[in-house]
Amino acid sequence: MAEDIQIILGIDPGTQITGYGIIQCQAQSIELLAIGTIQTEKFDDHYDRLQCIYDRILEIILAYKPHILAIEAPFFGKNVQSMLKLGRAQGMAIAAALSQKISIQEYSPKKVKQSITGNGNAAKEQVAAMLGHILKTDVLPKQLDATDGLAVAVCHHFAMRGVPTQGKKYSGWDAFIKDNPSRIVK
Amino acid sequence: MAEDIQIILGIDPGTQITGYGIIQCQAQSIELLAIGTIQTEKFDDHYDRLQCIYDRILEIILAYKPHILAIEAPFFGKNVQSMLKLGRAQGMAIAAALSQKISIQEYSPKKVKQSITGNGNAAKEQVAAMLGHILKTDVLPKQLDATDGLAVAVCHHFAMRGVPTQGKKYSGWDAFIKDNPSRIVK
Repeated sequence: MAEDIQIILGIDPGTQITGYGIIQCQAQSIELLAIGTIQTEKFDDHYDRLQCIYDRILEIILAYKPHILAIEAPFFGKNVQSMLKLGRAQGMAIAAALSQKISIQEYSPKKVKQSITGNGNAAKEQVAAMLGHILKTDVLPKQLDATDGLAVAVCHHFAMRGVPTQGKKYSGWDAFIKDNPSRIVK
Repeated sequence: MAEDIQIILGIDPGTQITGYGIIQCQAQSIELLAIGTIQTEKFDDHYDRLQCIYDRILEIILAYKPHILAIEAPFFGKNVQSMLKLGRAQGMAIAAALSQKISIQEYSPKKVKQSITGNGNAAKEQVAAMLGHILKTDVLPKQLDATDGLAVAVCHHFAMRGVPTQGKKYSGWDAFIKDNPSRIVK
């Protein structure tokens, strides 16, 4: 039986640079559709930056029609002011997705790294290298913000397929459920 | 010479309750057009709450066509997680305003209180009471979230007219400029 095609938009939002990656998944295959960054440093005005994020994310959504927006969202930050600004940047992407009735799923940076490399503390370079391996390509952009966005999309794909980390394989449902009791719907 | 009519939407965003007030200003006169709260507690889902804020703010903007969105934005918060969520809630209002090409101006809670009561540490009740006095009405809602939103709109009106606080009057431009050197365009 053919499995449905799923298009996933992954983003790593920031007030200066937002990285994104779009993948098309079917069963175990993953195809890269697009990857890049939204650079807002050219704008001095805070609202122009936010508008730019909203407009570009909406353009990407309209162009690729993803089924889901997977977003990297930290639970900790350096200070409250930077978290407020980050929340606004995330808000732009969330508003763009909601306007098109697209579901949203969040992942912590640690979860994304864990999912891609098997190590929640992996360096961005390691994540980028592993993504090249997973997607069987050596033409990923050098910008780590871009690969960070792509990583969130691939992380969501793995999470949907019950692959908690690249470093760990489960022999069956019993083993998976034993390690993931919180995923059981009671 | 008649001065232009200015419609100001003031909001005090929150993930659970967002207060708003809309005023129509002409010269020194201020007329209350609408006041209320957007209550999102009824939604369990975080994104449903954000969507509700976006949709309601957009409805209000389309109904009253404000010239500006004045938004209360704290610079400090209890913790980074609550600031991230607040940033997202603010982001919904900001995205709704940007979608209609409406300018945005931010004021700190202290600045708003200072502007309305002359005391940056005034209680919400004092702010509400002073707003009733300024707007010559005794029918303001009891909800302090609503009057908080209205206060931001009135604060913006005062700021535009060069009235830094209710508690301080300037005898002329020289006195005003002496106290507000940062407002001089060089």
